[in-house]
Amino acid sequence: MTEPLFGKVALIGIGLIGSSIAINIRDRGLAGEVAISTRSRETLERAEELRLGTSYHREASDAVRDADLVILSIPVGASGAVTREIASALKPGAIVSDVGSVKGSVIEQMLPHLPAGVHFIPAHPLAGTEQSGPDAGFLELFENRWSILTPVSDTDPEAVARLTAFWEALGSKVEVMTPEHHDLVLAIVSHVPHLIAYNIVGTAADLETVTQSEVVKFSASGFRDFTRIAASDPTMWRDVFLHNRDAVLEMLARFSEDLATLQRAIRWGDGDALHALFTRTRAIRRSIVEAGQDTAAPNFGRQPPRKDPWNEPGEPKA
Amino acid sequence: MTEPLFGKVALIGIGLIGSSIAINIRDRGLAGEVAISTRSRETLERAEELRLGTSYHREASDAVRDADLVILSIPVGASGAVTREIASALKPGAIVSDVGSVKGSVIEQMLPHLPAGVHFIPAHPLAGTEQSGPDAGFLELFENRWSILTPVSDTDPEAVARLTAFWEALGSKVEVMTPEHHDLVLAIVSHVPHLIAYNIVGTAADLETVTQSEVVKFSASGFRDFTRIAASDPTMWRDVFLHNRDAVLEMLARFSEDLATLQRAIRWGDGDALHALFTRTRAIRRSIVEAGQDTAAPNFGRQPPRKDPWNEPGEPKA
Repeated sequence: MTEPLFGKVALIGIGLIGSSIAINIRDRGLAGEVAISTRSRETLERAEELRLGTSYHREASDAVRDADLVILSIPVGASGAVTREIASALKPGAIVSDVGSVKGSVIEQMLPHLPAGVHFIPAHPLAGTEQSGPDAGFLELFENRWSILTPVSDTDPEAVARLTAFWEALGSKVEVMTPEHHDLVLAIVSHVPHLIAYNIVGTAADLETVTQSEVVKFSASGFRDFTRIAASDPTMWRDVFLHNRDAVLEMLARFSEDLATLQRAIRWGDGDALHALFTRTRAIRRSIVEAGQDTAAPNFGRQPPRKDPWNEPGEPKA
Repeated sequence: MTEPLFGKVALIGIGLIGSSIAINIRDRGLAGEVAISTRSRETLERAEELRLGTSYHREASDAVRDADLVILSIPVGASGAVTREIASALKPGAIVSDVGSVKGSVIEQMLPHLPAGVHFIPAHPLAGTEQSGPDAGFLELFENRWSILTPVSDTDPEAVARLTAFWEALGSKVEVMTPEHHDLVLAIVSHVPHLIAYNIVGTAADLETVTQSEVVKFSASGFRDFTRIAASDPTMWRDVFLHNRDAVLEMLARFSEDLATLQRAIRWGDGDALHALFTRTRAIRRSIVEAGQDTAAPNFGRQPPRKDPWNEPGEPKA
């Protein structure tokens, strides 16, 4: 192990992403000190039990003192308020970054509060699972995933290089783009997929002709894939939709137009149109597997469900 | 191993489902003979190479002769034509079944051609992967999955019991319901989820502001789950939508209404409405995992993508 990349890192927020960063810093020796801050006393105590840092703080401004790198891992809607709190305690020359799924709004919220002399480099690691909280973190979360940096103009290239080295040390691949482009890309590869997953799970739960217990029981025929995504953290995702509104509405409008076309093809029995689309989409799946962004194993290589004769699986609990 | 359930089984169609049935019959000794028929010479030869049956036939009517159980595993749109072909060769007292994802239309297509004296019991195992063809089959496909039987009126209960025993021998759990109810349930748990997965993959491919290579590269943030479903067999799914039109259009209308409501909540910044839905959908995921219908492992327990320094993953091929 070589010299740590940073003397002290402050992690503000310690959910799935924050705790995965913490585990990486600890297990790979990437910093001398790790100060952790979160509002919830319970979460902070849990972070300490999990030995995620070297010091623990209820106040974010206490955590960031003397830190060389500060990373906000909080719902994007809280970015402005937290930046206002920490601004005066930031060390000159520190790198301030985040992991939010929206970049334009985060920059708008944070930039006005930041003092001159700190390097603000917004970032977004495209990694996650449907789980949340400090217990959900794990070392391999960022392995072979992309992290996108969206530096604002005039950012010191040396600071960008240091943050790039940090994400690469976590196993990530790094790409730089503008915040506007990031928000468009994420709207289609992440935000709208989450929205329609949440939506269809809600639609299914509200039917009067098919019971909720039938939906659960027979979910393996496709529906269950959507429920995984629709189990993601509600607060984080509420903020994503509120803060990437324009790009999400734009992509959603296109999705709905295309769906209306498919609906019309079904109504009028246009099998050729359906077959043509279904063939085209298959090729995109192949590209994703070839690009190493998903497993080629059928059903994602899911483990077969546990068999337990005393508590028979397959029967939904009443 | 006890006495085989059937003397001779005929499998018409030998894709993912047909070949998985064949492997089960062979490895569990469920029948004395297995006659396999498919139109494609290439597929039939492959089935023989894989030792999926005991005899191989280009003509379905040759395969069904003397069979005690005949299972059609073909796109649902072909059910009528194939039944007409085999009708006169069926053995009196034989059970005739299928595995189609739509039941009302299959019954309409098959029933008029079937001679008196055969037991017609439509069936649908709710099992599958995104792969297709005779090489895709495997022994555990039906393990802990539901198979739905939709017997028409006056079906001999003894024949239903034998087919139930057959599916149970394949590891499946069996439920009986009306064809109409089956088609409604499947519309929401399977058909509409497949349609919206196909649709969003198409939408993403058609954008001019985000390139297809970016969609592939950054797919791990949610989109890739949809591409798995959108890689399913195009012919099979074309037929599903054409033959379960009314139920699919009904469920799709509800989905679109709900999506319009969400869209409005985003436009007007109604975070409470979003948070309330996102919390409710999380509970449904929990029920599915508790019911043994999906794994609790994050990201479906996906294996981390292979690392290969000579052919770096994560970079989409041009």
